[in-house]
Amino acid sequence: MTGRPVSGRVVVLTGGVGGAKLVLGLTRVVDPASITAIVNTGDDFRHLGLAISPDIDTLLYTLAGKSNRAQGWGREGESWSFMDALRSLGGEDWFAFGDGDLALHVLRSARLVQGETLSAITHDFARAWGIAVAMRPMSDDAITTHLATDAGELAFQDYFVARRCAPVVSAIRFEGASAARPAPGVLEAIADPDTQAILIAPSNPWLSVDPVLAVPGIRAALAAASAPVVAVTPIIAGEAVKGPTAKLMRELGLALTPATIAAHYDGVIDALLVDDRDRAADVPIAHAFADTLMTTLEDRARVAGAALALAASCRGR
Amino acid sequence: MTGRPVSGRVVVLTGGVGGAKLVLGLTRVVDPASITAIVNTGDDFRHLGLAISPDIDTLLYTLAGKSNRAQGWGREGESWSFMDALRSLGGEDWFAFGDGDLALHVLRSARLVQGETLSAITHDFARAWGIAVAMRPMSDDAITTHLATDAGELAFQDYFVARRCAPVVSAIRFEGASAARPAPGVLEAIADPDTQAILIAPSNPWLSVDPVLAVPGIRAALAAASAPVVAVTPIIAGEAVKGPTAKLMRELGLALTPATIAAHYDGVIDALLVDDRDRAADVPIAHAFADTLMTTLEDRARVAGAALALAASCRGR
Repeated sequence: MTGRPVSGRVVVLTGGVGGAKLVLGLTRVVDPASITAIVNTGDDFRHLGLAISPDIDTLLYTLAGKSNRAQGWGREGESWSFMDALRSLGGEDWFAFGDGDLALHVLRSARLVQGETLSAITHDFARAWGIAVAMRPMSDDAITTHLATDAGELAFQDYFVARRCAPVVSAIRFEGASAARPAPGVLEAIADPDTQAILIAPSNPWLSVDPVLAVPGIRAALAAASAPVVAVTPIIAGEAVKGPTAKLMRELGLALTPATIAAHYDGVIDALLVDDRDRAADVPIAHAFADTLMTTLEDRARVAGAALALAASCRGR
Repeated sequence: MTGRPVSGRVVVLTGGVGGAKLVLGLTRVVDPASITAIVNTGDDFRHLGLAISPDIDTLLYTLAGKSNRAQGWGREGESWSFMDALRSLGGEDWFAFGDGDLALHVLRSARLVQGETLSAITHDFARAWGIAVAMRPMSDDAITTHLATDAGELAFQDYFVARRCAPVVSAIRFEGASAARPAPGVLEAIADPDTQAILIAPSNPWLSVDPVLAVPGIRAALAAASAPVVAVTPIIAGEAVKGPTAKLMRELGLALTPATIAAHYDGVIDALLVDDRDRAADVPIAHAFADTLMTTLEDRARVAGAALALAASCRGR
């Protein structure tokens, strides 16, 4: 099921680091200019007056070859003079801005104040860095992920960065979602008859993909799309690749199985790419198996290729 | 006339680099905690959404021992990752933010948005950096220096940084001055009966000191002050220490002499500290001579001491 060439366009719904790995893998198996990445902005927040879009930034750094792979976020070769000076002035330092990373936030903030949209700014940043993938925020309207926890209601960055995911989560909501509109090009890419596959990256389904699905119109567009929708499992051998997903699933009373992922995406996906290590699991949906762990660049291309092959097999049915 | 000890408080009106040298010199001859520096904010501007106060920042860096003396502005040991990244994103680069320098602008901007005053923010920054001098912006209200030039009307930074003072200046105005109020503590410091001397630093009289004098109430307070007001000449041997002052004076049709400075400050100052090299000049006001060139830290202390001694001699009259 691998190696079948894909013509036409590919759409991928993605969150942060894990999603960016899949998108990077996709650029190695199809023409990057044929890819549209619809990116979660539920984690977006303001700090020190600056507009921060963590998942957009992670994808920018990853696709531009500037990401810090060891650290898992931010820029390779980053320096920290700003934070040193900020601390010396008594500024808050729970969120760390790298010196070069600040350019994204300062320039984005300045352009937003001038009335430009996040879509337009993201497009320009991607072009400036030679990124051929069409990067589209899920929405230009503010949607912010909030978590009900045993430490009270927390904004996403407070939970994720300041408290390092320690609080126990009982519910998640996406403030502003009901009034938000998909960003320009999002519904069009999903509905495009040239789109051959729509992938959901192995990002956290509850924290990174659900905000995208919460934007009015996106879920319906996926259901109506002629292209098959294929999710790549974030679960490998009964564990999540990244810690917070597993902890969150347990707190929500969910089994760490492909079946949970399939149920979560019920009505959205046509098929699930399941990890080889879960071949024994019950998967109540069309599926294929692959080694979905993405450590090397070759891994990323292989997983992207497997997901596209699964989509192609759905089209063939 | 030198070496007479000064008790009580000292007030100094100051602009950028030249003024900061005098204030630093003052801290070597009197208790820094007895000094109030009233700082020009006419050069303040916004760039990339950040609030920049060049003269306040220069004084902060100088008094905290963080200034880059070779460059004449900014921080010693600065790094430039932000600007590299900004350029890579297509951002404007006519004004250069150092990585550490950004902390001042980002934190100040964030606190201004929260409704704090420039006075309060400046006070906190100075305290955080161990500066005992009371640093007071001339006003918490926006006053912006604009220049009528042969290239049209220009905001100060456009003239000074972007165009490197090349346009020919015909007039200067301080937008917002008529509606502005002196910042808290400014009039009080000038009128304080404990104030023994009020100095005007050898900053550009037209671009750096006039904005301070344009704040309603400051000129009257100086006239009414019991303390003598002494200016340190920015003219040495028929030239200005810093290029732009001489060029500007010529464009305004002014002779580069102590008499021009005395006439400019007529009604404001009681005496003028004139440079040794201008002993032959006609100085139609009380004055003393000193070597006013401030190259070393010792020079700065010597000039500050000479200005204070001149003030003391005025009190004795």
